[in-house]
Amino acid sequence: MTEEMQDKAPCTMRVARLYGIRDLRLEDLPRPAPGPGEVLLKVACVGVCGSDVHYYVKGRISHHVVTEPLILGHEFSAWVTELGPGARQLEIGQLVAVNPQIPCGECELCQHGHPNLCPNVRYCGTPPVDGAFAEYVVMPARNCFSLPQGVGPAEGALLEPLGIAIHAVDLAHLKPGQTIAVLGGGPIGLLIAAVAKVSGASETFMIDPLAYRRQFALDYIADAVLNPSEEGTDLVAEIMGMTGGRGVDVAFEAAGAAGTPDQAAAVVCAGGKVIIAGIPSEDTMRFTASTARHKGLTIKIVRRMKHTYPRAIRLIQKGMVDVKPLATHTFPLEHIVEAFEMLAACEDDMLRAIIQASGK
Amino acid sequence: MTEEMQDKAPCTMRVARLYGIRDLRLEDLPRPAPGPGEVLLKVACVGVCGSDVHYYVKGRISHHVVTEPLILGHEFSAWVTELGPGARQLEIGQLVAVNPQIPCGECELCQHGHPNLCPNVRYCGTPPVDGAFAEYVVMPARNCFSLPQGVGPAEGALLEPLGIAIHAVDLAHLKPGQTIAVLGGGPIGLLIAAVAKVSGASETFMIDPLAYRRQFALDYIADAVLNPSEEGTDLVAEIMGMTGGRGVDVAFEAAGAAGTPDQAAAVVCAGGKVIIAGIPSEDTMRFTASTARHKGLTIKIVRRMKHTYPRAIRLIQKGMVDVKPLATHTFPLEHIVEAFEMLAACEDDMLRAIIQASGK
Amino acid sequence: MTEEMQDKAPCTMRVARLYGIRDLRLEDLPRPAPGPGEVLLKVACVGVCGSDVHYYVKGRISHHVVTEPLILGHEFSAWVTELGPGARQLEIGQLVAVNPQIPCGECELCQHGHPNLCPNVRYCGTPPVDGAFAEYVVMPARNCFSLPQGVGPAEGALLEPLGIAIHAVDLAHLKPGQTIAVLGGGPIGLLIAAVAKVSGASETFMIDPLAYRRQFALDYIADAVLNPSEEGTDLVAEIMGMTGGRGVDVAFEAAGAAGTPDQAAAVVCAGGKVIIAGIPSEDTMRFTASTARHKGLTIKIVRRMKHTYPRAIRLIQKGMVDVKPLATHTFPLEHIVEAFEMLAACEDDMLRAIIQASGK
Amino acid sequence: MTEEMQDKAPCTMRVARLYGIRDLRLEDLPRPAPGPGEVLLKVACVGVCGSDVHYYVKGRISHHVVTEPLILGHEFSAWVTELGPGARQLEIGQLVAVNPQIPCGECELCQHGHPNLCPNVRYCGTPPVDGAFAEYVVMPARNCFSLPQGVGPAEGALLEPLGIAIHAVDLAHLKPGQTIAVLGGGPIGLLIAAVAKVSGASETFMIDPLAYRRQFALDYIADAVLNPSEEGTDLVAEIMGMTGGRGVDVAFEAAGAAGTPDQAAAVVCAGGKVIIAGIPSEDTMRFTASTARHKGLTIKIVRRMKHTYPRAIRLIQKGMVDVKPLATHTFPLEHIVEAFEMLAACEDDMLRAIIQASGK
Repeated sequence: MTEEMQDKAPCTMRVARLYGIRDLRLEDLPRPAPGPGEVLLKVACVGVCGSDVHYYVKGRISHHVVTEPLILGHEFSAWVTELGPGARQLEIGQLVAVNPQIPCGECELCQHGHPNLCPNVRYCGTPPVDGAFAEYVVMPARNCFSLPQGVGPAEGALLEPLGIAIHAVDLAHLKPGQTIAVLGGGPIGLLIAAVAKVSGASETFMIDPLAYRRQFALDYIADAVLNPSEEGTDLVAEIMGMTGGRGVDVAFEAAGAAGTPDQAAAVVCAGGKVIIAGIPSEDTMRFTASTARHKGLTIKIVRRMKHTYPRAIRLIQKGMVDVKPLATHTFPLEHIVEAFEMLAACEDDMLRAIIQASGK
Repeated sequence: MTEEMQDKAPCTMRVARLYGIRDLRLEDLPRPAPGPGEVLLKVACVGVCGSDVHYYVKGRISHHVVTEPLILGHEFSAWVTELGPGARQLEIGQLVAVNPQIPCGECELCQHGHPNLCPNVRYCGTPPVDGAFAEYVVMPARNCFSLPQGVGPAEGALLEPLGIAIHAVDLAHLKPGQTIAVLGGGPIGLLIAAVAKVSGASETFMIDPLAYRRQFALDYIADAVLNPSEEGTDLVAEIMGMTGGRGVDVAFEAAGAAGTPDQAAAVVCAGGKVIIAGIPSEDTMRFTASTARHKGLTIKIVRRMKHTYPRAIRLIQKGMVDVKPLATHTFPLEHIVEAFEMLAACEDDMLRAIIQASGK
Repeated sequence: MTEEMQDKAPCTMRVARLYGIRDLRLEDLPRPAPGPGEVLLKVACVGVCGSDVHYYVKGRISHHVVTEPLILGHEFSAWVTELGPGARQLEIGQLVAVNPQIPCGECELCQHGHPNLCPNVRYCGTPPVDGAFAEYVVMPARNCFSLPQGVGPAEGALLEPLGIAIHAVDLAHLKPGQTIAVLGGGPIGLLIAAVAKVSGASETFMIDPLAYRRQFALDYIADAVLNPSEEGTDLVAEIMGMTGGRGVDVAFEAAGAAGTPDQAAAVVCAGGKVIIAGIPSEDTMRFTASTARHKGLTIKIVRRMKHTYPRAIRLIQKGMVDVKPLATHTFPLEHIVEAFEMLAACEDDMLRAIIQASGK
Repeated sequence: MTEEMQDKAPCTMRVARLYGIRDLRLEDLPRPAPGPGEVLLKVACVGVCGSDVHYYVKGRISHHVVTEPLILGHEFSAWVTELGPGARQLEIGQLVAVNPQIPCGECELCQHGHPNLCPNVRYCGTPPVDGAFAEYVVMPARNCFSLPQGVGPAEGALLEPLGIAIHAVDLAHLKPGQTIAVLGGGPIGLLIAAVAKVSGASETFMIDPLAYRRQFALDYIADAVLNPSEEGTDLVAEIMGMTGGRGVDVAFEAAGAAGTPDQAAAVVCAGGKVIIAGIPSEDTMRFTASTARHKGLTIKIVRRMKHTYPRAIRLIQKGMVDVKPLATHTFPLEHIVEAFEMLAACEDDMLRAIIQASGK
């Protein structure tokens, strides 16, 4: 986009706002202006995260409730359109990936390097902060990461779930040659497997009840896939059989089902680690105590991500992780309701739906 | 004990064997002889662990079942009485504390420094390996740790639970000035608090429903105690109130109750750690998922101990931890049934009962 | 100080500025005013750090050169005197300890929790940022930590070196019952020993060539002291002798002498850690390679501190560390040159000199 | 090899023994017999390590001196030929890779999972323990790791340096997307780069003064290579230039030159890690103190390896690391002197020379 284009930019913008359960409306709102240290972004691509669908269907996620009309969307790429005062290091027209998390930078947790746990965080597309299903959005300049040549808008939108996956793998402290299992073959599970594979994992088992996802996982990344729902399948026995009775070094839970945390604990080896990345449908996480104790387990819970964008960009740029296959569906912003309805219906051949919010 | 005494030592020994639920019998058995690398030990003091009482009352702990008559007892001190071939580094007559855990030393877990997770471990007083409620026992010489001047037999017996506590605190990677909570004021909880206090903990909250234990904790180690059962007490609110709304850095669960793991997760700060040391009465460990996720928790499960005896001995020798107050009751071996019955009745003023297996 | 006092506060302030080598002048400068998020502080006590003396004697520390008149001083306590816009959480009249380090909060290192390595840091009393040898100073409100009842201005000034010591001990990941050596018995070495002692160290050896410091260390904290300069003393042999031939778990180098890093490596056990806290007089750090390799050493270098003030305050408040004995000398601001001259002469009975910058 | 062959095996064996500097003799010695838990191995391939050449040229490595005739060689594969009593888990005729390190399994370091630091270790081919430049060798069964289909004898011999490389990468705790530099393009440096690349390294810079090695590194693994000896080359400036002024996350020193440890410190980022794997020609390791301090560096020294064989085998089996290209030269045992002479002459197109000790 040229500066000329910018001058002609209209003063309103198209957005999709959630008014309540399954009530997502396309509207025109005034275009925001960037303050000090901020930039105005023209949104390119926005991934529809499972949490977006959760808000659409339930109107809330645990204590985060949509009480006012809200623009969802936090996985996005955009073009820099206008620089607020002091917003250096970015240039008009640059394509950037955007970290949706705006921590305070001053609390104890921020100072200790845990911006993902900041109690004062403002998070794009989480009540009450508007997100990116919109033509324009304003963000701090430091949340914007320039994308190198050859990395496009859809990939840029997928840097956010890739960042989550990197954080999950960081927590596991994988060593070269270790083995892993991933429970749940959705986008997060697949990206965790992909990051783990280039981080030393020598064998990756993926578990999902949906045939489409198992096939996708096998084509994309997994050494073997298992169906936990199949009659006669003993998941634990099978994985123990394929690992010489040992179990895997790390099990990543990315399904959010009631039983998957405990399955993760069951398939991991003594001294192993369980990393919980899924957001459970019910608010209880259960483990068989004797299993956890006999194995002396370590369990870590993934919460958003730390400062992972620079590494995420390098993984894509160097061809170590390919996020493009995950973008199975694309919709223009005007068709966003259709996208949400299809996702709410759990169409099983969808992984990530990408909303194209605007053209460059 | 002189060598002369040794020569006159009888060829039988007095032992207490568990034949079934609440069926503990005093008997005379042949005295064992030490093999290569082993020593014959004259048992001095043996602590009665909660797990011993569990076997006495239930006949089993998870998949460990007492099917043959078994000598229980794994927390003990003893005098070295006879050296098997190649058992150097020990002298006849030395008082030693004994690590009851005999790992294989060759499996992957042993080689990685996790003898506590060795699948081939032989563990004194756990089926089918006889333990220390006996006049004599044979152990590998390398399981015996000489006690320095001034550390007596009862303290020696308490090195085993102290070792567990050290392992629990090791898992927490405490930093100087951090704060802790301990859920459960039994011997393990108290020793965890004591070790944590000399490992940097600047504030220790202890939680127990029994008044006797709360008072003991307050006298022994705690900065504040709380009663989780008291009507109107909101445990979490109180600890948050006393920590400026932050919670503690590490919560140690040492109660084994159904709700205590989740209470531990509730009182810990964002980014904090939960260390599970209690053996739960039911075989499920539950956490509120949203709490664990919002805090990005790390949960670690304590399984026995690693190589902690040398450090345990130094902590006692230097006066950093005083284990003696925990030995609230003492019984001669002939009265062991009385000790087990009192413990089974949950006499609430008992912490550790010590069985005196023999005189020097 | 009441608000009334504040109103009457003069518009100039007394300061000590370094004009060049051994040229420290008392002057009157305009009193600064706090900007947004900042506070005006009336300085209470300021410790004279070895680095301050280094600037006084040499005019520089490595690439930090005093080219313009500079107010030194970065270890200080103060009373809050005026709040800039948005500086909440502090009250007029409060006594605070002040973290002299103002990181940018936005760079990669800040985001990863390493404010001590921030390339954009502004550091009080380091060129070109004026420090605290002054009646007044302006600082960000978030750098000010309220001192609890019973913790006075001199202790508040000593929180800064205590924070360094906490950071050094953090790097060591001490475990309960481990043993340590500290090379160098100045204030940093003594505080490291004090923090290590309440963080699990069961035996502390301190090494210093000065008799006064060895005696002080013995009275203050050490289990044993050694003189590395004494003829016939083989430091390594002695420490090996006192540790059963094993060496200590962690050796802290806090002397900055040419040979002390390698001595630290020599007295540590196989698998042990060497923590380098001293600022060496010459710019080379040497280790005997075969020793380091046979022991598989880990060497960590201390750089300033992370977010340690809240923990430092708790250690003092709870009586776990007593910093007061280190303040061996006190001078009013008007006598600051005398203090610097005595320190430059290495009067060996001085540990920390405290400058009283103002009365409350 | 069939069992029939075994019966016919001669009672002598061909070996190469080092009698002194550059005095390596081919001889016939009695074939050893396996004791309890041991196996007799028919040696397949043996790599000639730089340390073997060092013994050949200097007669010693630091305090390890060849005083009696010694069979060198510790990187080897072999066929299992005879099982000693109790040596289960292996079958006659199996091809195995052999861990040359026989730790005691009982000392504190072994119990803590540091067999590489065991003070009682027996190490094949290090005085006074004979090694593998021989037709037969006896080893504990647990030191032998079965090679899967498709992994041949030469690869088996290269598992030992691969294990060292895995240990070096383990020490670095690489995170996905981090960047590395490797100083020294010999076999260890190349294998470190190869393991790091499948352990998350997104960019690998290799530095070596030899053109052949730089070209090899570029073909094999490196993203960019640098010549530190070239006039006008400022190594640090170049790497800073290629990393946006930041430096790499981890620098591995695998050259053993006088200046390479400090170069490693110079090219690493603030907060980064330096891993020293090279065995220096002179016994001093030097760092620029101010650089190390300003970066808050962590330096770790590689000593042999821990329990890495199972992971090493998986990395090869899964095609994650290809060790075959490193075996640039092959010699039958009878020509071993020629191999050593070529290596001693530093023929710069040699990486690993493999000695074929016997045919199957």
